[in-house]
Amino acid sequence: MRIAIDVMGGDHAPAKILDGAVQALGLLDSGDQLLLVGNREVIESHLHVQGVNHAGKIKIEHASQVITMDDSPVEAIRGKRDSSIVRMVRLGKEGHADALISAGNTGALVAAGVLMLKPLAGVDRPGIAVFLPSTKGGVLLCDAGANIQPKPAHLYQYAVLASMYCSALGRSESPSVGLLNVGTEEEKGTPVVKEARALIEADSSIRFAGYIEGRDIPNHPCDVLITDGFTGNVTLKVAEGFSTALLQSLQRESAAQGAQFAATLKPMIARVLKQYDHEEVGGALLLGVQGIFLKVHGSAGSRAIKNAVAAAKSLGKLSINSAIERRLAATNKTIQ
Amino acid sequence: MRIAIDVMGGDHAPAKILDGAVQALGLLDSGDQLLLVGNREVIESHLHVQGVNHAGKIKIEHASQVITMDDSPVEAIRGKRDSSIVRMVRLGKEGHADALISAGNTGALVAAGVLMLKPLAGVDRPGIAVFLPSTKGGVLLCDAGANIQPKPAHLYQYAVLASMYCSALGRSESPSVGLLNVGTEEEKGTPVVKEARALIEADSSIRFAGYIEGRDIPNHPCDVLITDGFTGNVTLKVAEGFSTALLQSLQRESAAQGAQFAATLKPMIARVLKQYDHEEVGGALLLGVQGIFLKVHGSAGSRAIKNAVAAAKSLGKLSINSAIERRLAATNKTIQ
Repeated sequence: MRIAIDVMGGDHAPAKILDGAVQALGLLDSGDQLLLVGNREVIESHLHVQGVNHAGKIKIEHASQVITMDDSPVEAIRGKRDSSIVRMVRLGKEGHADALISAGNTGALVAAGVLMLKPLAGVDRPGIAVFLPSTKGGVLLCDAGANIQPKPAHLYQYAVLASMYCSALGRSESPSVGLLNVGTEEEKGTPVVKEARALIEADSSIRFAGYIEGRDIPNHPCDVLITDGFTGNVTLKVAEGFSTALLQSLQRESAAQGAQFAATLKPMIARVLKQYDHEEVGGALLLGVQGIFLKVHGSAGSRAIKNAVAAAKSLGKLSINSAIERRLAATNKTIQ
Repeated sequence: MRIAIDVMGGDHAPAKILDGAVQALGLLDSGDQLLLVGNREVIESHLHVQGVNHAGKIKIEHASQVITMDDSPVEAIRGKRDSSIVRMVRLGKEGHADALISAGNTGALVAAGVLMLKPLAGVDRPGIAVFLPSTKGGVLLCDAGANIQPKPAHLYQYAVLASMYCSALGRSESPSVGLLNVGTEEEKGTPVVKEARALIEADSSIRFAGYIEGRDIPNHPCDVLITDGFTGNVTLKVAEGFSTALLQSLQRESAAQGAQFAATLKPMIARVLKQYDHEEVGGALLLGVQGIFLKVHGSAGSRAIKNAVAAAKSLGKLSINSAIERRLAATNKTIQ
């Protein structure tokens, strides 16, 4: 398995990303290889200082540019052709890498994935899956913004993709799948939502949990939550925005209770905030494209990178993409 | 002005609602009347015990049924024809009341409004407006769920309706109007969102604030936020659900810091939660129907009811609905 790692993306790049890659060397089987994408000189000097003897386990793919967190995603992908993100995704596109890992600009990664990678057979449009915080370790939301005007068949495909990924990640053997809606009653929703429900319910291999309302997400009403990319993107950002604002206003209030109280509250707030920050609960997965595409959170340290390599290895062993293609080949025929 | 009040709706009904109505008698001008809708015997006995001499200022409209918070909205409206909500809305429909006030089941009120009341001239579909918490006293979100698949012209009409209401409520003389989207760049969004933007931008009397992302709402990026009823409803419920869940998990964490710390934190959390509970920041307004339709929060006490009567009086004086009809008559012609 060839796993490409964007060495230049994330708050602690390149040092912590490279440290993580070095730690991950122990996870590789014979024949596996890490492809480190970024500035060759920086990578070589870091590996040299650390005295790493990688003996063919590491290959360096030079990229002269970096897409920053402030870059506009689509412009950056088009303008920075020699950036580590574009170079990494091209390795996937051209069949030189089986898995892609980056802690860089989420929007740019998704744009590169959607614009540059080929979808799997049977998948009409790739989707973004992210974990929303919940009482049982996170609800996998799909789509979080790749496809803002999906057809019912796309939503059905997301249900298949996300539930197979959810199993593969070891979250649940038989994940329950909900459909985000304005109410739980059967008559609620747009025609697209209702048709998607019919397609999902007709597939007996999906454990359908019914319509789910936004206020119930934190109580883990289902393992996988399907919605269109417009609503999914807004959901993600509203959850993030209100969680942050609310804890900030609590922190301000705490000042009135004296310095000691505020000092005790501060790390508590940081812990809760971390739990409610979607970047912390697994980052984003780009589903429905060739290969395995993992977005690690921007504040990723070496351990997160090592874990992402481990996840890529597990997902690779499961041949999840070919399983998805077989399953969609069977069902898409009947729904189109 | 004839103001109908649903006496049976809300957590503290009927006592606190009736107390509020009695307190509001002092706000009435000559010729004004409060129409109290609910169980006649209960209302008469309450007024009698309080020794209220209402001298023609109060009229009782008997209703034998009550729609509870657990009733399914549409079923309740159809099934409980003699409920205080259906009776109250019928007073509006038949021209016997100029304003409607209730603290009852929000879904049932909205369903009654949309199904029973006539829209204003120039308004294709009524919309629900609610205040989302923000640093500057709340962003008025419209539509929060009345119209889940709007056309661009509907969104434009909501921009006119909500900004005129926002001014009338004294929030801002010239409210800024944003459009909820998955990004702030002009190329983002569905065709419906883009066409709505063009219509809003073409109306020079609207102060357009551009596209707004969900995570910025708590920072008050605009006074009025326009979106389709599907996304608006999900936004409202996600904000509510995550705010509540987050503060609950903070409360649980606080237990480990000892009883005194937890006891100090508890009222702080209650204060912040109140500020982030949409029910507390003004409740819902049903925009675009004849008359004035105010939904007071379910936990409303007498003061909230008195304030709602004051708001109804101010809105009535401004003749906001006829101003809206004049303005839409001028612009709708050019956009259709």
